[in-house]
Amino acid sequence: MKLYHSNGSPNARRVRMLIAEKGLDVELVPVDLGSREQHSNAYLAINPRGVVPALVLDDGTVIGEAPTIMRYLDDASAPPSLYGTTPAEKAVVAMWERRMETEGFAAVMEGVRNAAGGLKGRAVSGLHGYEQIPDLIDRSKQRVANFYDDLEAQLGRSAYVAGDRFSAADITALATVDFATKAFSMPIPEGRSAVKRWYAVVSSRSSATA
Amino acid sequence: MKLYHSNGSPNARRVRMLIAEKGLDVELVPVDLGSREQHSNAYLAINPRGVVPALVLDDGTVIGEAPTIMRYLDDASAPPSLYGTTPAEKAVVAMWERRMETEGFAAVMEGVRNAAGGLKGRAVSGLHGYEQIPDLIDRSKQRVANFYDDLEAQLGRSAYVAGDRFSAADITALATVDFATKAFSMPIPEGRSAVKRWYAVVSSRSSATA
Repeated sequence: MKLYHSNGSPNARRVRMLIAEKGLDVELVPVDLGSREQHSNAYLAINPRGVVPALVLDDGTVIGEAPTIMRYLDDASAPPSLYGTTPAEKAVVAMWERRMETEGFAAVMEGVRNAAGGLKGRAVSGLHGYEQIPDLIDRSKQRVANFYDDLEAQLGRSAYVAGDRFSAADITALATVDFATKAFSMPIPEGRSAVKRWYAVVSSRSSATA
Repeated sequence: MKLYHSNGSPNARRVRMLIAEKGLDVELVPVDLGSREQHSNAYLAINPRGVVPALVLDDGTVIGEAPTIMRYLDDASAPPSLYGTTPAEKAVVAMWERRMETEGFAAVMEGVRNAAGGLKGRAVSGLHGYEQIPDLIDRSKQRVANFYDDLEAQLGRSAYVAGDRFSAADITALATVDFATKAFSMPIPEGRSAVKRWYAVVSSRSSATA
């Protein structure tokens, strides 16, 4: 298997962290986002959506979309699973993983894409051009602030995002916090003691360096 | 099992269509979005995110998020699956289902939520209030137009969204087209013959009335 990725892509990092957690043998193939290699004909022949990450299986099957790749790699590999054992357990983890994405990760991404000078005319990922909307920067900040509030409440109820065990939901939550901190100047706010306790634990896992 | 839903919710319709396709025995419990019952204390005790749909299993486990519920119901029920048989097949369907959502369904939703008079101050679903951003209406229209272009290309390559068989990806695509038509005045554009051929086929399935 090959994972087309970029060190600078937080979506690719979600997949790399899962690979590291599970100790999977996946070849990493860098795609240079700086020169827009993801929009080159060579890369579009692999992933027509023009984004990283993309996983190419040994039979040539291409799987795109970070959470889909994460779930596939977990489903196709030996236990322990980062989603759970039963369909219901997997659904609860997938639900939380998705909430971390839609309420956290996607909010940071929207803020960054509508703010960054280098992304003018490319405010939505993919091949289609869209102008930036400056009002989205503030809305994204509000959403990320609310994400931290909600995460504090959830981590007050359980040790990890989806319950008592580390799961794929923690991977996306950690990627979100680091992305918000580095690219959107929104680190964990003061007073969020449950988030800080959780962050100390999950960021010290060896997968966090992936 | 009980599905908390609303007839007016296109996200709930995605789940109802999957239930109908698989012939599952799920009790439908209506939630009145008009009176904001989804934000009532009684409903928040079921789904703290304050949105429909939510699936409650017989043991009390709550599963939220439309695509997560769809995948759970498919995983937990007898074949034939609406995702496929192998992990790779399931991943390819899940990838396409997600693309239909992020590039189509979510674009329509964003346009509607930022345009509708009744949704002032509630431009993002959930419990947190966000003001509408009028510039998002035009951007959403551009995104939906591009969605139709891309769907035309894909359906020129295969009979259904994710290949030669009807799948969960077609459910989300059909829900998107009907939502765009009814709530965003963006029916299938002229000249999209592959989309129209596909639409005639999938909209005639009995599940389309769900």
